[in-house]
Amino acid sequence: MKIELINTGSELLLGRVLNTHQQWICRGLADLGYEVSRQICVPDDGPSIQAAVRESLSRADLIITTGGLGPTSDDITRDLIAQMLGRKLIFDPAVMAQIERYFASRQRSTPPKTELQAMIPEGARVLPNLNGTAPGLAIPCEPNPFSNSSAKALLILLPGPPRELRPMFTDLALPLIQREMPLSAKFVCRTLRTAGMGESLVENKIAPPLEPLVRQGLEIGYCARIGEVDVRLIARGECASEIVAQAELTARELLGQTLIFGIDDDSMESAIVNLLTDQRKTLALAESCTGGMIANRITDVPGASAVLIAGLVTYSNQSKQALLGVRSESLDAHGAVSEVVAREMAEGAIARLDTDYAISVTGIAGPSGGTDAKPVGTVFMALARRDAQTIVRRQFNNFDRETFKFVTSQQSLSMLREQL
Amino acid sequence: MKIELINTGSELLLGRVLNTHQQWICRGLADLGYEVSRQICVPDDGPSIQAAVRESLSRADLIITTGGLGPTSDDITRDLIAQMLGRKLIFDPAVMAQIERYFASRQRSTPPKTELQAMIPEGARVLPNLNGTAPGLAIPCEPNPFSNSSAKALLILLPGPPRELRPMFTDLALPLIQREMPLSAKFVCRTLRTAGMGESLVENKIAPPLEPLVRQGLEIGYCARIGEVDVRLIARGECASEIVAQAELTARELLGQTLIFGIDDDSMESAIVNLLTDQRKTLALAESCTGGMIANRITDVPGASAVLIAGLVTYSNQSKQALLGVRSESLDAHGAVSEVVAREMAEGAIARLDTDYAISVTGIAGPSGGTDAKPVGTVFMALARRDAQTIVRRQFNNFDRETFKFVTSQQSLSMLREQL
Repeated sequence: MKIELINTGSELLLGRVLNTHQQWICRGLADLGYEVSRQICVPDDGPSIQAAVRESLSRADLIITTGGLGPTSDDITRDLIAQMLGRKLIFDPAVMAQIERYFASRQRSTPPKTELQAMIPEGARVLPNLNGTAPGLAIPCEPNPFSNSSAKALLILLPGPPRELRPMFTDLALPLIQREMPLSAKFVCRTLRTAGMGESLVENKIAPPLEPLVRQGLEIGYCARIGEVDVRLIARGECASEIVAQAELTARELLGQTLIFGIDDDSMESAIVNLLTDQRKTLALAESCTGGMIANRITDVPGASAVLIAGLVTYSNQSKQALLGVRSESLDAHGAVSEVVAREMAEGAIARLDTDYAISVTGIAGPSGGTDAKPVGTVFMALARRDAQTIVRRQFNNFDRETFKFVTSQQSLSMLREQL
Repeated sequence: MKIELINTGSELLLGRVLNTHQQWICRGLADLGYEVSRQICVPDDGPSIQAAVRESLSRADLIITTGGLGPTSDDITRDLIAQMLGRKLIFDPAVMAQIERYFASRQRSTPPKTELQAMIPEGARVLPNLNGTAPGLAIPCEPNPFSNSSAKALLILLPGPPRELRPMFTDLALPLIQREMPLSAKFVCRTLRTAGMGESLVENKIAPPLEPLVRQGLEIGYCARIGEVDVRLIARGECASEIVAQAELTARELLGQTLIFGIDDDSMESAIVNLLTDQRKTLALAESCTGGMIANRITDVPGASAVLIAGLVTYSNQSKQALLGVRSESLDAHGAVSEVVAREMAEGAIARLDTDYAISVTGIAGPSGGTDAKPVGTVFMALARRDAQTIVRRQFNNFDRETFKFVTSQQSLSMLREQL
């Protein structure tokens, strides 16, 4: 099965907006065993959109488009595709009623031109939009007018705004795809999320022992991002569940729970919030060079308030002393970026906020501020615990500023996770 | 001139990685007057990459590819393209020496297979990689073997890792493009970055008065993102500078300095750090519902340490009392999400940290925790100032959790910027 994704939007090709749809849609499909074979982005003009859709129809069985379904003059995707397929647009009173309910529930009157969004191409199925006005559309093309093999194709049109597209894609489009275009064989996928070891080391560790399962049909994929490596275990067919389960067991034995922080959509921060919640433990943060990124990541997790008592971003020496009780002698003798100060920060946080754990980080993010003994990238991080000794580590994270902050936050969260 | 961008990488089509190259490259080009007409993403397999490059060569004058230049078995872009164009790969000792220097400077020995990256297609120009090993390549195709019009084309191959690609693209590829493929007319672009007014209101305010300049060739583009609207002013030809300068003047008069927080690549946080630095003022943060995002944004700006004394993420009532001196009577009588508590947080932060300004935010990010009187999305934010009254605002930001945090951080930073 061939799948293509077409993102429409001039703002994407001018670089004003990041294309997050690609990742969301490709990942949702891949986790169910559907792989996108090509993604295309074209500006909001008629010839570009029609050419892209026509080409995709000539190659693929499933084509998903994003954007261009709204009420403004830029929103031309629905009309262009209907015209290309020779389908009339028919007013759908049920869609109009839903749009009116949407505005009414927000105490807003229905704006002019709204009814354009209730014009539905003949033969299309409506995917109701619960978070906006333009409905999604699923258009079966049987036969497919642009394919030489005259195979059938399915065209799915999704709205552009992420908060409309995401629930519609997950809750409506994916089940529709699974129903209308079932895979020929059962598909099982499990992603193990790891941190703390490079891609090639992870591969060297697990690939040889998994070789027998690979001969039975296991596929292993590795994806390295900054500070993380995903291991994707896939199998198809009758024995898929058993093969993937066995592979997961083997990989977990080889890598150990220290490296594997979660599965599938887990993040390091959600893993930590869940572990702390289960254990009814609390956390305080004392950040210097990460500047609040650790707190920001932890509070991205719903329910973080049950575990995070406070985060202190003590960017100045003054605030390290005032808020955490770091001693001026320590700062004078060792400097703010030192093992001693990292320790005092974590211990100050745990004592003052009366938590079970406290993480501290202090380092030189750059671009300036380095010395020969402590070049840009030097970091000290500490973990203070209620009933155990404080652990301090030194790291060298020689990256650009934003990467530095992320890698450092990841290492300090890993350090905590290892103790939970 | 037609420009196409081809991103190679199976991990992109599996949704494991976000395609940030698209935004970076498209934006860099657009700011110089070059618009990308199509972007394509294909997996790391030979037929997909060759088909995409061949199709782009049949349509475009400039084709940029990303990824697949490294030393691993996935890295096949260079070889495939050389083969397709019928170019031999020739070992380049200067490239090899540069790669060896790269490893030597990191006290690492040169790994095996490295010499693959020193194999350069005949006739290609090398773009040295200062942040990694695989060089970029610029391959002039004259004549273009896949174009019917037999026009010439330029093919630029860039490495995949962002910290290698970005400086190479900006410092080497863009100047090369400007030299080899000059625009037919002078191009001037100025982006005004605004926050605090919706896209259609901004357009209604500036479009009619700018109409005379549009007749002289001014192009106006609007791009709305969450919490921000960019206004792009463009002109081409002899009078381009004058037209854009006049348009900027008019737009600034109409929108005022309260709405316009920066130009071009400025961010709200960099605007604030620069203003505070110039005025030698200091800032403290007291965040609840934004959970450290404001601190994280401020500390993304190099030099933030000169202005940010500390950020307190007081996620619990306990920490609001202990760290900021919020009174328990205020929490009991009004709740943590209230005007009174927002005020006490900001005033506690400014007093305890002795800064010129302090921002506080307290609200209900959701998904749970709302009431009838204070539904999910309710926020109170305060700005305390050394010598002036504290300002408190109530907002209603009914979004998903991450959008809520961003919009709220944006509003509170705007509130500060208005006073600077």
